[in-house]
Amino acid sequence: MNRITGGLWAELQHLNRTAMIPHAVQWMTRLGWVANFDRAATGERYEHRGREFADSEIYKIIEAISLEHVRSGPGELDVVADDLVRRVAAAQEPDGYLHTLFGRPWQRPRYSDFTWGHELYCAGHLLQAAVAHHRAYGSTALLDVAVRLADHICVMFGPRGLNRVCGHAEIELALVALYRETGERRYLDQAALFLDRRGHGTLPLIEFGRAFAQDDLPVRKATVLRGHAVRALYLAAGAVDVAVETGDAELLAALKTQWQNTVDRRTYLTGGMGSHHMDEAFGEDFVLPADRSYCETCAGVASIMFSQRLLLATGESRYADQIERTLYNILATAPGDDGRSFFYANTLHQRHPGGDVPVNDDGVSIRGGAGERQPWYEVSCCAPNLARTLASLDDYLATTDDEGIRIHQYMPSLLETTIGGESFTLELATDYPATGTISITVTRAPTAPATITLRQPEWSPPLPDAELTRIWQPGDTIMVDVDMRTRVTRPDHRADAVRGCVAVQRGPDVLALESVDLPAGWTLADAELVSADPTTTDVVVRHHGTGKEATIPLIPYRRWARRGPSAMRVWIPTWQLWSMRPGPSR
Amino acid sequence: MNRITGGLWAELQHLNRTAMIPHAVQWMTRLGWVANFDRAATGERYEHRGREFADSEIYKIIEAISLEHVRSGPGELDVVADDLVRRVAAAQEPDGYLHTLFGRPWQRPRYSDFTWGHELYCAGHLLQAAVAHHRAYGSTALLDVAVRLADHICVMFGPRGLNRVCGHAEIELALVALYRETGERRYLDQAALFLDRRGHGTLPLIEFGRAFAQDDLPVRKATVLRGHAVRALYLAAGAVDVAVETGDAELLAALKTQWQNTVDRRTYLTGGMGSHHMDEAFGEDFVLPADRSYCETCAGVASIMFSQRLLLATGESRYADQIERTLYNILATAPGDDGRSFFYANTLHQRHPGGDVPVNDDGVSIRGGAGERQPWYEVSCCAPNLARTLASLDDYLATTDDEGIRIHQYMPSLLETTIGGESFTLELATDYPATGTISITVTRAPTAPATITLRQPEWSPPLPDAELTRIWQPGDTIMVDVDMRTRVTRPDHRADAVRGCVAVQRGPDVLALESVDLPAGWTLADAELVSADPTTTDVVVRHHGTGKEATIPLIPYRRWARRGPSAMRVWIPTWQLWSMRPGPSR
Repeated sequence: MNRITGGLWAELQHLNRTAMIPHAVQWMTRLGWVANFDRAATGERYEHRGREFADSEIYKIIEAISLEHVRSGPGELDVVADDLVRRVAAAQEPDGYLHTLFGRPWQRPRYSDFTWGHELYCAGHLLQAAVAHHRAYGSTALLDVAVRLADHICVMFGPRGLNRVCGHAEIELALVALYRETGERRYLDQAALFLDRRGHGTLPLIEFGRAFAQDDLPVRKATVLRGHAVRALYLAAGAVDVAVETGDAELLAALKTQWQNTVDRRTYLTGGMGSHHMDEAFGEDFVLPADRSYCETCAGVASIMFSQRLLLATGESRYADQIERTLYNILATAPGDDGRSFFYANTLHQRHPGGDVPVNDDGVSIRGGAGERQPWYEVSCCAPNLARTLASLDDYLATTDDEGIRIHQYMPSLLETTIGGESFTLELATDYPATGTISITVTRAPTAPATITLRQPEWSPPLPDAELTRIWQPGDTIMVDVDMRTRVTRPDHRADAVRGCVAVQRGPDVLALESVDLPAGWTLADAELVSADPTTTDVVVRHHGTGKEATIPLIPYRRWARRGPSAMRVWIPTWQLWSMRPGPSR
Repeated sequence: MNRITGGLWAELQHLNRTAMIPHAVQWMTRLGWVANFDRAATGERYEHRGREFADSEIYKIIEAISLEHVRSGPGELDVVADDLVRRVAAAQEPDGYLHTLFGRPWQRPRYSDFTWGHELYCAGHLLQAAVAHHRAYGSTALLDVAVRLADHICVMFGPRGLNRVCGHAEIELALVALYRETGERRYLDQAALFLDRRGHGTLPLIEFGRAFAQDDLPVRKATVLRGHAVRALYLAAGAVDVAVETGDAELLAALKTQWQNTVDRRTYLTGGMGSHHMDEAFGEDFVLPADRSYCETCAGVASIMFSQRLLLATGESRYADQIERTLYNILATAPGDDGRSFFYANTLHQRHPGGDVPVNDDGVSIRGGAGERQPWYEVSCCAPNLARTLASLDDYLATTDDEGIRIHQYMPSLLETTIGGESFTLELATDYPATGTISITVTRAPTAPATITLRQPEWSPPLPDAELTRIWQPGDTIMVDVDMRTRVTRPDHRADAVRGCVAVQRGPDVLALESVDLPAGWTLADAELVSADPTTTDVVVRHHGTGKEATIPLIPYRRWARRGPSAMRVWIPTWQLWSMRPGPSR
C-alpha cells in the first residue's frame, strides 16, 4: 500500500481528519440532516431538513471516515461512523428503499421527480459509503443496507422495470463499486442498463435543456462533456467503470475522446470545469470567462474521478497530469487553512475583495459565490466531497503492473507493492513543488528486473531516467529534476474572454496576482504585466494609468484569499507578452 | 402631437399593429392566460395557466392597443381591447383586489409571496393600461377597475398598512401615472412610500442576494443600478416620477448619478443591460462579457423608460443619445421581420449558428437563449413590452418648452406644438441612418422668435445650426448633416472580456460581423479584423490560421440572424486596431 508521508498533501490529510470531517459532521448534525434518518425511523410525521440530496452528504462523510480509518488507523472518528451507520440503517424501509424525503404518506411519492429528486443519486452515495465502510472495518452493517437498497433498485429499474434514469448521475459508478465488492454481476448489469437508458429524452424537458442531465445524447455517441459539470463527470466516471468491467472498447474510446475534447476546450487552466453559474454547466467550446468562472469544487473532485479511471484503464500520463493540475489548483484551493471553510466556486478573477454570499438565519451560505471561503453552504457537497478525496489520496500516487511501478504524483511517500510475488518498496523524498528535485530510494527489491517509471509532466522537458529497468538493490537511488522555471501561457485565440492576457505557471501551480501584493494606491484593474522571468515568481507590472512600473510577487493560485479578502486574477492583461508569443501552451 | 411618418420606425409601428399585437393576443389566448380572468370571475375552482405575471401581459397588450388607437386611429384591435377590458374587469374582487393566481380558497393567500408573487407588479401594469385606455377611448371601464385596485393597495400598504414592497418594482411608476391621470394625491404618496420602504431588507433573503430586488440599499443612497435589470430600471423610472412630482432634488440627483454610472460601467455598447443569465442581473462594473451577454429585450424597454424620464426632467441630450442607441440596437433587433418572433436575450457574440432553446409541448420556449428569434416564451414579457413601446414611440421624437422645440430623434416625422399659444409645426425629412442628412421645414410658425434645437449625437462632431432662434416663416428649412462615417471603438481596459477587440459603429448602429458574410470555409472564430475604412461598412479581415485576407461587409447589429441561423460577433479580435488607439470611445 502507498502512503503520503509529508508535505502539503499530508498536511491537508491531517487537516481533513482533525478539522474538515468533524466540521462537516457538526454542521450536518446542527442543521438536522442527520436527524432526518432518526425521524424517518420512527414512522412519525416530520419536517425534512435540508435539500433533496442531504442524505448523500452523510453518506459521503461515512465514506470519508472509512477511508481515513484505512489511511491513518483507528481514532475518534470511528465512533462517529458507527453512530451514523446505525442511524442510517434504522431508516431503511422494509423493501430496501432509503431516502428521507420521499415516499412516506405525507411526502411526495417515491420516484416522482427524477429531475430534481436525487433518489438514485443518494442511493449511489450510500453504496459507495458501504463499500468503503466494509473495506475499512470488515463490518457488513452498512453493506447489508446497500445490498438491500441495490436489490430494490435492480427490481424497480431492471430490464422489466421503469425505463428511467436519475437526473443526477452517480448510481452508475456506485453499482460498479458494489459489484466489485460483492461479485454480484447484476449490479454491473444494472449500471450498464442505466447508462444505455440515458440520452433518450426520458427526463422531463427543463429550462436548461436536455444536455443539463446528459439526456440529450447516448453516452457512447457524445464527443465532449455537456451540461451540469458534476453530473457529466460522475456519469463519465461510471461509464469508464462499465467499459472496463465489460470490456467495451468502443465505449472506452468514446470516453477518451470526450475527456480530451473537454480538457482541450472546456476546462480552465486550473483544471476547473463548468463556466455557467445558472446551471452549473459546461459552456460551449472556449467559453471560459475568468470573471465569474464557476469551477465548482465538486466538479474538481469529479474530474479527478474521471481522470483516475482513465489512468488506470490506459496508463497514459496525460490523465495523471490533469489530476495533478486539479489537485494543486482546485482541491488545495478550496479549503481554508483552518479546515472549517471552503470555496464552493473557484473563480479565476475576483474583481473586488471579499464575498457577496448571502447567509441565512442558520449561518448557511445560500449560494456559491467565490470571494471568500464560507463555513457551510445550502448545497454543501464540497466539504464532504473534499473529505473523501483527501482521505483516499494515497491511491493516486502510483500504480503497479507486471513490469514494475509507475509513479504518478510527486509527494513525499512510501510506495509498497509486489512484483512477481516479491516485495518492491520505494521511498520518495521531495519538497516539490517548492523545488523540482525528486529522490527515489529503493528499500526492498525483487530479485528479477523491475521497471520504475516516472510521470513526465506535460510542461517539463523530457526527464532523463524517467523509465529505468534493472535489477534493483536496496539503497539504489534515482534523482530527477523536474523543470520548475516559471512559464508564461498564452490562451487559445478562441478563448475570447482572456484575449490579450497571459497566465504564469510554475510546476503544477497556476500563479495568481493578488491585490494585497500591489503597490499602495493601485487597484487590480490598473495592473498590466510587463515581464516575467523564468527564474522567479516575481513579475514586473505597469500601472495602466500612470505607466509606473513595480516588481511584485505572484502567488500560487491555491494560496489566494488567505491574507484577508482580496481581489485576484490568474489571466493578467499584457501587451508585450501576449503579442510576442506564437501560440497557446499549457 | 408628434408623429413618425416613414422609415424604419414607421415600418415597425405598422408591423406592431398588424402582426406583433395580434400575435401576442393569439398566444395569450391559446395558452389560457386570458381565460384565467374568465374562470376567476366564475368563482369556481380552476387551474391557473402561465406564470405569476401572466396577468400583466394582458394588461400590457391593452396598453399597447390603447396607445396604438391614439397613434393610428380606430381599427379592428379596438374590439380586442374592449373584450379584454370586460374580461379583466369581471375578475376583480369586491374589495378591489385583482390577481388570478392568489387569494381564492384553493390558491395561495394574497400577499404571501412578495419575492416571486408579482401581485403589485401586475397591479402596476393594470394601472398603466387603465391610464392609456382612458386617454385613448375616454372610457372609464378600466380606469374604474384601476382606481378600486389602487385604493385597495393604498389601504393595505398605506402608512398604517403592511410595511412591504413587491419583489418586482412597477407599482411605483404606475401609481404616479394614475395620480397624473386622476389628480388623486394619495397615489403619489403611496408611490413615494413604496420607494422609501425598499432597501431595508423587508424581502426574504434569496440566493441572488438582497440586491436582486434592490432591497439592499435605499434608492436615494445607491450610486449605480444593481440586481435584476428590469426590476432596477422600473424602480429607477418610478423614482424619477416621484422626484419630479414631489420636487425632490436630492432623489433626482441620485438617479442621475445612478444612470451615469450604469451607462458608463454596466451597459453594453448596444445599450443592452444585464450581463447575468442566472439572475437576469447587472454584473459588477465592467463585467460585460460578449459571450452570453443577456441584454434582455425588456431591460432595453425599461432603460428607455428610465432615460426618457430623465430627458424630460433635465433636457440633457445624453439621455436621448442612450434612447437612440437602445432603440436601434435592442428594440429594432428583437422582433423578427414577420413580427411573430422575438429575441428574449440580445447577445453580442453567438458562437454557433442557431439556437438551443428548449421548447415545451405548447410550442413555448422555456428559456431566453439568444441564437434565434422564437415565437413565444414562457416568460413572455418581451413581445407585449415591445408592442407598447413601439405604439408610443411618437412621444420620443421631440419635446417643447417655453422657448421652442427640442428634436431628439431623427425619424421622418411631423412635429406639432404650440409656443406662446401659437401653432409651431415642422416637417422632418431624412433617410437616417442610411445617410446623415436631415432636413427640417417649418410649416406653421408663431409670430414671436422660437428656438429649434437639434440633438447633437455624442459620436458626431458638433453640428452647425444645432440651435437656431429666430422668427420663423413657413417654408424655412434647416439642413444638417450628422457624421455617418464608420468609427472604430476600443473597449475600456477594465472590460476584460473584450480586451484585444474593437467594435465598429456607424451613426446609431452598432455593426456586427455575421458568419454568412465570411469567405467559404471560414468560421467566425477564425476572423480577425485588419482594417476598417470610415467611408464604408466593408472591412478587411484576416484568417487566424492561414493569414489570408478578405474584404467583407459588416451589417447593423439589428439585422443579424435574418438570413437564416448564423454566428455573429460585435467585438472583433484585432491586433492592429486595438493596439493603435489610445483609449476607449463610445
